[in-house]
Amino acid sequence: MIIVMKRNASANEVKEVMAHIKEVGLNPVIIEGTERDVIGVTGDTATVDIRTIRANKNIVEVLRVSEPYKLANRAFHPENTQIKVDNEIIGGKQLAIIAGPCSVESEEQIVNIAKRMKAAGANFIRGGAFKPRTSPYSFQGLELEGLRLLELAKKETGMPIVSELMSTKYLDEFVERVDVIQIGARNMQNFDLLKEIGKTQTPILLKRGLSATYKEWLMSAEYIMSEGNGNVILCERGIRTFETETRNTLDIQAIPVLQRRTHLPIIIDPSHAGGESYLVPAGAKAGVAAGADGLMIETHEDPANAWSDGEQCLTPDEFDKLMEQIRVLAQVEDRTVAAKLN
Amino acid sequence: MIIVMKRNASANEVKEVMAHIKEVGLNPVIIEGTERDVIGVTGDTATVDIRTIRANKNIVEVLRVSEPYKLANRAFHPENTQIKVDNEIIGGKQLAIIAGPCSVESEEQIVNIAKRMKAAGANFIRGGAFKPRTSPYSFQGLELEGLRLLELAKKETGMPIVSELMSTKYLDEFVERVDVIQIGARNMQNFDLLKEIGKTQTPILLKRGLSATYKEWLMSAEYIMSEGNGNVILCERGIRTFETETRNTLDIQAIPVLQRRTHLPIIIDPSHAGGESYLVPAGAKAGVAAGADGLMIETHEDPANAWSDGEQCLTPDEFDKLMEQIRVLAQVEDRTVAAKLN
Amino acid sequence: MIIVMKRNASANEVKEVMAHIKEVGLNPVIIEGTERDVIGVTGDTATVDIRTIRANKNIVEVLRVSEPYKLANRAFHPENTQIKVDNEIIGGKQLAIIAGPCSVESEEQIVNIAKRMKAAGANFIRGGAFKPRTSPYSFQGLELEGLRLLELAKKETGMPIVSELMSTKYLDEFVERVDVIQIGARNMQNFDLLKEIGKTQTPILLKRGLSATYKEWLMSAEYIMSEGNGNVILCERGIRTFETETRNTLDIQAIPVLQRRTHLPIIIDPSHAGGESYLVPAGAKAGVAAGADGLMIETHEDPANAWSDGEQCLTPDEFDKLMEQIRVLAQVEDRTVAAKLN
Amino acid sequence: MIIVMKRNASANEVKEVMAHIKEVGLNPVIIEGTERDVIGVTGDTATVDIRTIRANKNIVEVLRVSEPYKLANRAFHPENTQIKVDNEIIGGKQLAIIAGPCSVESEEQIVNIAKRMKAAGANFIRGGAFKPRTSPYSFQGLELEGLRLLELAKKETGMPIVSELMSTKYLDEFVERVDVIQIGARNMQNFDLLKEIGKTQTPILLKRGLSATYKEWLMSAEYIMSEGNGNVILCERGIRTFETETRNTLDIQAIPVLQRRTHLPIIIDPSHAGGESYLVPAGAKAGVAAGADGLMIETHEDPANAWSDGEQCLTPDEFDKLMEQIRVLAQVEDRTVAAKLN
Repeated sequence: MIIVMKRNASANEVKEVMAHIKEVGLNPVIIEGTERDVIGVTGDTATVDIRTIRANKNIVEVLRVSEPYKLANRAFHPENTQIKVDNEIIGGKQLAIIAGPCSVESEEQIVNIAKRMKAAGANFIRGGAFKPRTSPYSFQGLELEGLRLLELAKKETGMPIVSELMSTKYLDEFVERVDVIQIGARNMQNFDLLKEIGKTQTPILLKRGLSATYKEWLMSAEYIMSEGNGNVILCERGIRTFETETRNTLDIQAIPVLQRRTHLPIIIDPSHAGGESYLVPAGAKAGVAAGADGLMIETHEDPANAWSDGEQCLTPDEFDKLMEQIRVLAQVEDRTVAAKLN
Repeated sequence: MIIVMKRNASANEVKEVMAHIKEVGLNPVIIEGTERDVIGVTGDTATVDIRTIRANKNIVEVLRVSEPYKLANRAFHPENTQIKVDNEIIGGKQLAIIAGPCSVESEEQIVNIAKRMKAAGANFIRGGAFKPRTSPYSFQGLELEGLRLLELAKKETGMPIVSELMSTKYLDEFVERVDVIQIGARNMQNFDLLKEIGKTQTPILLKRGLSATYKEWLMSAEYIMSEGNGNVILCERGIRTFETETRNTLDIQAIPVLQRRTHLPIIIDPSHAGGESYLVPAGAKAGVAAGADGLMIETHEDPANAWSDGEQCLTPDEFDKLMEQIRVLAQVEDRTVAAKLN
Repeated sequence: MIIVMKRNASANEVKEVMAHIKEVGLNPVIIEGTERDVIGVTGDTATVDIRTIRANKNIVEVLRVSEPYKLANRAFHPENTQIKVDNEIIGGKQLAIIAGPCSVESEEQIVNIAKRMKAAGANFIRGGAFKPRTSPYSFQGLELEGLRLLELAKKETGMPIVSELMSTKYLDEFVERVDVIQIGARNMQNFDLLKEIGKTQTPILLKRGLSATYKEWLMSAEYIMSEGNGNVILCERGIRTFETETRNTLDIQAIPVLQRRTHLPIIIDPSHAGGESYLVPAGAKAGVAAGADGLMIETHEDPANAWSDGEQCLTPDEFDKLMEQIRVLAQVEDRTVAAKLN
Repeated sequence: MIIVMKRNASANEVKEVMAHIKEVGLNPVIIEGTERDVIGVTGDTATVDIRTIRANKNIVEVLRVSEPYKLANRAFHPENTQIKVDNEIIGGKQLAIIAGPCSVESEEQIVNIAKRMKAAGANFIRGGAFKPRTSPYSFQGLELEGLRLLELAKKETGMPIVSELMSTKYLDEFVERVDVIQIGARNMQNFDLLKEIGKTQTPILLKRGLSATYKEWLMSAEYIMSEGNGNVILCERGIRTFETETRNTLDIQAIPVLQRRTHLPIIIDPSHAGGESYLVPAGAKAGVAAGADGLMIETHEDPANAWSDGEQCLTPDEFDKLMEQIRVLAQVEDRTVAAKLN
């Protein structure tokens, strides 16, 4: 950690800061500059609150040299984390292809699409039972009935279930019935929820917040991990920028940055990033080519009549075509895709 | 609502869309353009899900002409909403000046600062008992003990309490002991929490999310109001932009925009916007000059030793000086500030 | 074009707007809504200034249904534009691989790197002779001497030259000596410069501005085209967002969006997007997988001693390795890469 | 300057970096940390190119402790700069109130509005003769004829002229006929133009780029100053964010930040920030209350028929009313406004 003193801070003012640093158990080293002094701080600075130190008015800036996250940090855990879900592994050689509708609508809908997805090479079924909607007047999901229908789809196909949890209220049901709990972008910093899911061992798919930095995102993973649950999968789903023609801007560089910073697996969600189906193939292919551990893609047999987000759903045929290309691209990154069924 | 068809959509494709619009109870009117057709839709479109309609591949865009919020909409409720909290009114002629520390630390701290704030003209005491912190390793608040100390401060000064609720777990305690429940920026779209506080009648101070549009913010107010609680106060606290020298960018234009769109009161929080104490006076004065209904300002007797966010706290003396200026500025906007005590 | 009237606009106020629309040669059609009236406008609206119409205080919004650009618009020019540069074609089946140093430094440097790049499969040489630098104290380029050195590199390898022009002062030299004139992100809306290069027939590589929307970018292309130069290549080089760990955020979705909106070729510059060399391969591969017409990549034999932007340069060996992967990825998109030399 | 080495960099790798630092004439000091080493660098680092140093692969980050601008830096020039323009001073006790139409349209228009503005308390006339328009099909200004009409308005009212220069082509005319040369947001980093105007002594009003950081903006001022022209006035005109309901987001915090960083005067342009006339008064009042040195406001006698940007123009009556309030607010900041005429 580096503490930048104001210009012309007196020797006493510098000493005072150094004393304070020693008090909190760290080691200060002074560098006397021509314009101002700088204090280097060594020791375990990860848990120090920068904003508290910076409150001293003789300090103009406090800069972190080490990351504030530890459990999620690749420096302390060089090996990739692989997360086992039933017979699948997320973060291994085979890509995790998570597909299915935005909302679960009916038994027929979810079972049929699950079969089609599996045939094309998907290995996880997704479907929303509880839906975070911007408007209180929009369809909010089938709730527990939706989970039941997902279980039927799993029974038919063997694919593990990925579904979003919005509050602690239904946590027990999710732990019991869902294989990967998704935490949505809007809840990425719902810290109470993160702590509670951290007490389970269920794999967590943690979406990036709409305007979350990589560091904040990893700190949210750290919240979950610090409670004991190390099974965290990061999911890039686009960030908010000034561009409005796409729903969000897919940040493909998140993949190499995160691979350097953390050992956790990284998944790309091109559906929410683009917000329109014609954008999904480019985002999905870019994700695989850039080295992602998997994809999460919304699909629907009849997008124009989907109960939510039909606009961004691929049809099964579009999904088939995309998977053909993904299969080849994956090889360049030394990855595989689950076999196609007939 | 306006539906923009793709270029060269056939007469049948247009008819199909018009039929779909009629099915959901609305009235379509066609405008045949030189390049493409457009369908105007009249009727109650506020509760229609735009993204569902747009899923039709012959539609390139669906544009809203009316706002998707109703209860929060000034069009349907032209009078300003005034919210009574004990003997204070938020949204009336007198400004709501909410002051106090980021975190409640001790009885002495909170009672002393409350007295100093009241003497200077504040009429609400704020203090965090439950703290949303980016790092799981940072101080998370005194929790229920913090609420107890706030009650002591209220007993000494008579000022109503504003404090942040982070999850439904402690909702009952908050309803009983806190006068205004604050919902933080990171929970602005925690829809389950919004629904639950909507079932109470406690005034809610709803902070704008870090990257929330005005429309999304008002939709979050609508969530609370649609459950029956119309006592919503909006609080602008800065948005995230590319500029990193300030913690956030204070969006002062939020005041006139919201005053046009909604009847709810609007408060400015210059402390979280700037993130450094030297920025707070400019933000506070700008807020009052631009017509805000109040201010929320963090203060601490000893910022360098505050347990959180000391960097952005004003000292009581700085607060006094600011209040002197606010008192004059308020007159230009035909507003008053609570009397100064000696 | 759609004109949204304010609620309760009187019949006369609506008539007045309709009369104004007729005056400017367009056809208004009224849709009477329950809450407000809307006027659909047909005719050639592309050249109408929306902000002028919106100045009428009874209008709350004016929404475009058609794009404001015509020459760059795929709707009026469905075929892809292919731009011939010497013996190369940009926008054809073979990818344009533009490689070379940020700044031209010496004959040895530029000739050697050009040979290495060509051997790996590049078909254009890039190098900055005039450098737009944030600081007036930074190296500003070798200027005309830089162009001379680029010509030597071209003579040795046969590769056409891509180099940045910063003002009209040296336009004649560039037209004579450079094969593709690059317009940098900071000059994307330097309209006087756009008009002047529009009067030449030299191919223009137009970089996207740091915070330019797709529409603004295409309007800048339109500026060039409206003066008579249709040889415009668009280059996505990352946009500015709140994320600071990368220099910019590479917007990979620009590829499918632009391919829908325009017939002009699209190139990806992963070097400026990431700003660090370890990010370049992921961005480059993502670009090709998402369907770009080419790549522009900064390379240097000794990045640590480059005169500018060494941080983001690939070494020749790193470039070789990347090109091996690009070669395979290109096939998935039915593209080719120039043959490797030995 | 602080150089952060990668974890586990060897002693030799650290030595190599230190040797390189000495070579460029600076002094390195090592701080050996538990996780990694850090090198403090003292000496004149303002002109060092950070990205060049960072190209060494054993370095993970280079952090600036001192600002990269010198002439614009308050640290080296503690007194406020006051800029004399005819009989007016920008940056003194009296606010600079710059008012007038977006575009000069006719003699009658510009002379009449100038008289009205002066009567209300304005002390500078503004008007666009050369207009930077997003579309090549929009009105581009009366050009030199516009300057002539501005001179007539000056002759009638005595108010100095502020007008925008878009390229070096007309620089001589501007130096001769215009009192303050405006550089628009889109040209903030047109470095060739900055250098040329830096060779004159005409005061320059430098608008902030749409997505420019404070540092970049000050570096652009530094470009002008480093050529010899110290008469630079900074103008905040709103930045681009995700919010689309306003044209830009007015960054009011720019005022206190810049007042700390630089000695140059700071002006607020609420017209371009908001983009709609109803937003202008709040922005203008906020600017004065936050301590700005002046305002630039677009006005028009008949906004609905303005040739450009009528949407954001105040009518003379609206301007009068605003000035009444500004007059009172200015006192709080110990400022004055030019006398009102009858």
